[in-house]
Amino acid sequence: MTTEARALELIDRVRSRPAAFKDAQVTMAHGAGGKASRTLVEGLLAPALGVATLDDAAYLRRLDGAGQGAQVPALPAPERETVDDLALTTDSFVVRPIRFPGGSIGKLAVNGTVNDLAVSGARPLALTLSLVLEEGLAADDLRAEVEAIAAAAAAADVQVVAGDTKVVERGRCDSMYVTTTGLGRVDPRASLDARSVRPGDRVVVSGSVGEHGTAVMLARGEFELDAPVESDTRALWPAVDALLDAVGPSLRVMRDATRGGIATVLNELARPADVGVVVHEARIPVRPPVVGACEILGIDPMYVANEGVFVAIVAPDVADRAVAALREVEGCEEAAEVGEVRDEPQAMVLLQTAFGGRRVLDLLVGDPLPRIC
Amino acid sequence: MTTEARALELIDRVRSRPAAFKDAQVTMAHGAGGKASRTLVEGLLAPALGVATLDDAAYLRRLDGAGQGAQVPALPAPERETVDDLALTTDSFVVRPIRFPGGSIGKLAVNGTVNDLAVSGARPLALTLSLVLEEGLAADDLRAEVEAIAAAAAAADVQVVAGDTKVVERGRCDSMYVTTTGLGRVDPRASLDARSVRPGDRVVVSGSVGEHGTAVMLARGEFELDAPVESDTRALWPAVDALLDAVGPSLRVMRDATRGGIATVLNELARPADVGVVVHEARIPVRPPVVGACEILGIDPMYVANEGVFVAIVAPDVADRAVAALREVEGCEEAAEVGEVRDEPQAMVLLQTAFGGRRVLDLLVGDPLPRIC
Repeated sequence: MTTEARALELIDRVRSRPAAFKDAQVTMAHGAGGKASRTLVEGLLAPALGVATLDDAAYLRRLDGAGQGAQVPALPAPERETVDDLALTTDSFVVRPIRFPGGSIGKLAVNGTVNDLAVSGARPLALTLSLVLEEGLAADDLRAEVEAIAAAAAAADVQVVAGDTKVVERGRCDSMYVTTTGLGRVDPRASLDARSVRPGDRVVVSGSVGEHGTAVMLARGEFELDAPVESDTRALWPAVDALLDAVGPSLRVMRDATRGGIATVLNELARPADVGVVVHEARIPVRPPVVGACEILGIDPMYVANEGVFVAIVAPDVADRAVAALREVEGCEEAAEVGEVRDEPQAMVLLQTAFGGRRVLDLLVGDPLPRIC
Repeated sequence: MTTEARALELIDRVRSRPAAFKDAQVTMAHGAGGKASRTLVEGLLAPALGVATLDDAAYLRRLDGAGQGAQVPALPAPERETVDDLALTTDSFVVRPIRFPGGSIGKLAVNGTVNDLAVSGARPLALTLSLVLEEGLAADDLRAEVEAIAAAAAAADVQVVAGDTKVVERGRCDSMYVTTTGLGRVDPRASLDARSVRPGDRVVVSGSVGEHGTAVMLARGEFELDAPVESDTRALWPAVDALLDAVGPSLRVMRDATRGGIATVLNELARPADVGVVVHEARIPVRPPVVGACEILGIDPMYVANEGVFVAIVAPDVADRAVAALREVEGCEEAAEVGEVRDEPQAMVLLQTAFGGRRVLDLLVGDPLPRIC
């Protein structure tokens, strides 16, 4: 057995253990989208709530009881049909600072949630908006964010239909936290299923990576570093729409590469189908200012959050068509095929480096980038 | 013109001005559900987002463009029909402390949102759950709240289908903030419309008032006062279901009496139909320990938040039937008819005191009870 094979076996053994939430306290890592987050969701939240997972958009067909826990309400048959094609998702946004090059918390809160729907193959229809505001927040800051929300919703062609506002004492929040929930209609062209991924499939990235997280880190001004990096926050439905048009049922599954970056998303894609994913470092689009800033910050762009990039797995024969269709969409000009699906190593991601070496691209353990979304 | 008439005219003139959000900063009062909250919603949020109102559950039939602003997506006709009977609502919960006699933030977050749906005549189907956690939160506290959420969801016969978790640094939150969004199906028996209220209609309260807010205030331990008061937090769909069964289309409109208490809700009911509401103080059910505690705390139970009480306006001929039906439901044993709708004073609520006097029951101006939900 080679050293690499032994290492893979060890990682596999550790990773196949059921996640258990054993921490005594919540730490920043639990919010980072890596291993600790997975432990919190799979070891506590999902089992307690009787659901298989919690972070993705939920297809409401699950309300018929298939694949869900014991607490599923027994809906009469006609109800099952009519909620069948809806999807629901929610996200809280706690990004610090609330404004950064390319966006702000309000724009992010709209795009983040409509993108959760989009990568589930659901066209966004309606949003709800809930604000937790810090006492003393400047009215101008609030006004700017409400206007950013309205503009982003209009750009994403989605209506904010309901909302709520709470205020907490100075210091008990950080300007504002924003929670949006999105309702979407599952597109009939989409037949997405994470378990349908098979060896030979191709991995497509919809655009250049690492921009959002890098822009937010730089906006904090903690580093004496000025680089022309803007958040990529944008609504992804037009890109998904183009992809569905171009390759339809040959599109296996998509995920938006937010917290934890594309490294985390690739791991989440490899797991349910129990396949290996190999990505070629040289093919992953990363803009030079991001490469430079990440090197100085000591972070890997593969783990940096994006807010306008998704990873898609497509059948091998449509990979070129998928990339060509994406490149026609604004913001996806750098879409690229970056890797392929293999039989093994099961449920694992390997990065083929530019120098010919290979390394495991695992989930994050700590949290190098807190409060990025 | 009598003094009362002059006073009413003055109030009317002030209140009919369009709400403008002119404050320089967000204050605790903006989160209290009174006048400042209304200014924030009507003067900033709703106009910017192009909606008529924001705080109530939204009927998704509004997505067809009727009654909404310019940003309503133009859905193809078949879509309009299929989302026609759904309702969507959202609420953030920031109650302090997170546990109090009779409930906790988790239970509250489920019941609060399913109740928004219920009083809109929509049977709750699915919930989303988003947590903002404070770094350092004890895992046992988190576990207890997740279990409270699961138990409350099971009791309300609703499934949590999607979720999100964020963590912020110690001090940037207060243990946890919880946002829930609820999707419900509008019951075919319900034909609720705030503008359908007419003179002669009766005002029904579903149970004794003032318990939730009083219990939370006492739980803070800031007052050396110990009274046997528990939060009334409970799911209201069974009560709404019974009421719809008993009086059907004679039920004009309902509202749950949360922030701002029944005084605020009565004002919200009087406004859209431009009617006067007269309530009789002596008929409003308030339990003796609540009366006692509120007297010592210097607050009026009419303005104290409830989490398991709603106000319904019904046609005069079904008032007795409505009260009788409610009294059969657990938690609504003290339901009572407490007042009636009159031609005037328009858009205003008068309280007929136990001593024979009358006073205007206006919206709250400040916030005597911050972070009660």
